[in-house]
Amino acid sequence: MLPRAEQKQQTRKALLDAARELMESGRGFGSISLREVARSAGIVPTGFYRHFEDMDQLGLALVREVNETFRQTIRRVRHNEFELGGITDASVRIFLDVVAANRAQFLFLAREQYGGSQPVRQAIARLREGISSDLAADLGRMARWQHLDADALAVMADLVVKTVFATLPELIDPPELVPGQLSAQAKITQQLRFIFIGARHWQGLGNPG
Amino acid sequence: MLPRAEQKQQTRKALLDAARELMESGRGFGSISLREVARSAGIVPTGFYRHFEDMDQLGLALVREVNETFRQTIRRVRHNEFELGGITDASVRIFLDVVAANRAQFLFLAREQYGGSQPVRQAIARLREGISSDLAADLGRMARWQHLDADALAVMADLVVKTVFATLPELIDPPELVPGQLSAQAKITQQLRFIFIGARHWQGLGNPG
Repeated sequence: MLPRAEQKQQTRKALLDAARELMESGRGFGSISLREVARSAGIVPTGFYRHFEDMDQLGLALVREVNETFRQTIRRVRHNEFELGGITDASVRIFLDVVAANRAQFLFLAREQYGGSQPVRQAIARLREGISSDLAADLGRMARWQHLDADALAVMADLVVKTVFATLPELIDPPELVPGQLSAQAKITQQLRFIFIGARHWQGLGNPG
Repeated sequence: MLPRAEQKQQTRKALLDAARELMESGRGFGSISLREVARSAGIVPTGFYRHFEDMDQLGLALVREVNETFRQTIRRVRHNEFELGGITDASVRIFLDVVAANRAQFLFLAREQYGGSQPVRQAIARLREGISSDLAADLGRMARWQHLDADALAVMADLVVKTVFATLPELIDPPELVPGQLSAQAKITQQLRFIFIGARHWQGLGNPG
């Protein structure tokens, strides 16, 4: 029994790998057919249905995968902060290393937030929402943010997540560095500091500082 | 002569409209064929070449189009700020109205920054870079930001542009509002305030506040 279950697991993984690889050239998830994915994974098209009901279900599995990568990264960043005392530079470096090592996963995440499959788009919106509300809860437990109410924490966490998401194009496809220009890594590190400084001096809604 | 030139202009516009419409269902630019665009615009495929060398050139025309829309919007926001004294709420409202009225243009912009056409991706990176450096120059002329050096202004402007870009998914595909949750408009307004407060208290690099 076990070898067969293991083999099924391997074919499932081959299907996910195939879909990611087909998208790496820049094709959107919506333009990839079930038949192509099956062929790339080395199985017949009807074999696909032993693993996923349809392409949307495979797309949702890809979202769960990058969600897991994202959350593992957050745990590492958090561990690093507790150990070393909240060093933004180190946190950014951890995150950028993970993005570089899982380029196809993050490319999928970034592109399909605007993509053609509504279930996938909605799952990515929930992923963002989940990461953002966990971050707000984390921040709310830290001594330095006790002056922020729930709304302000939500706004701050969402801004951090937005900044990270919006930095993905530069990380996925690094532009040529113009001398005197900051690298994506230097920029996002300082931008997170900007946000933290804004949060430190935040005095509530309706009061623009 | 004029009617023929006008007709050519109209066909060119029909090709751009057709490409945008084909993408509205969520298809990526890379998955749309020249043949399809020509057919949707009501011309024969070979007629396409009287207007664009290839699909990448049409993609670049789409980038120029949304760039123009973006810059017109910035001029309106800037005019509003000079008239009314920098009201973030009103600026955000202007921007969100333009995005709603030009949904397909902004969907193209947002998605194709990670898309399959490298020339289009690079043109969008330059668009972002251009908007960001113009904004930095604008901010540098305002009395309240005289304590910021060129690097800090660049970091701040880039953070504003990132925040706006990263809000696009919520604007293009608004999630159902959970009671007690802030709307995308309320959130981005407060996030821009966060950034402005961070900038006001920024004391230079290497000094995390």
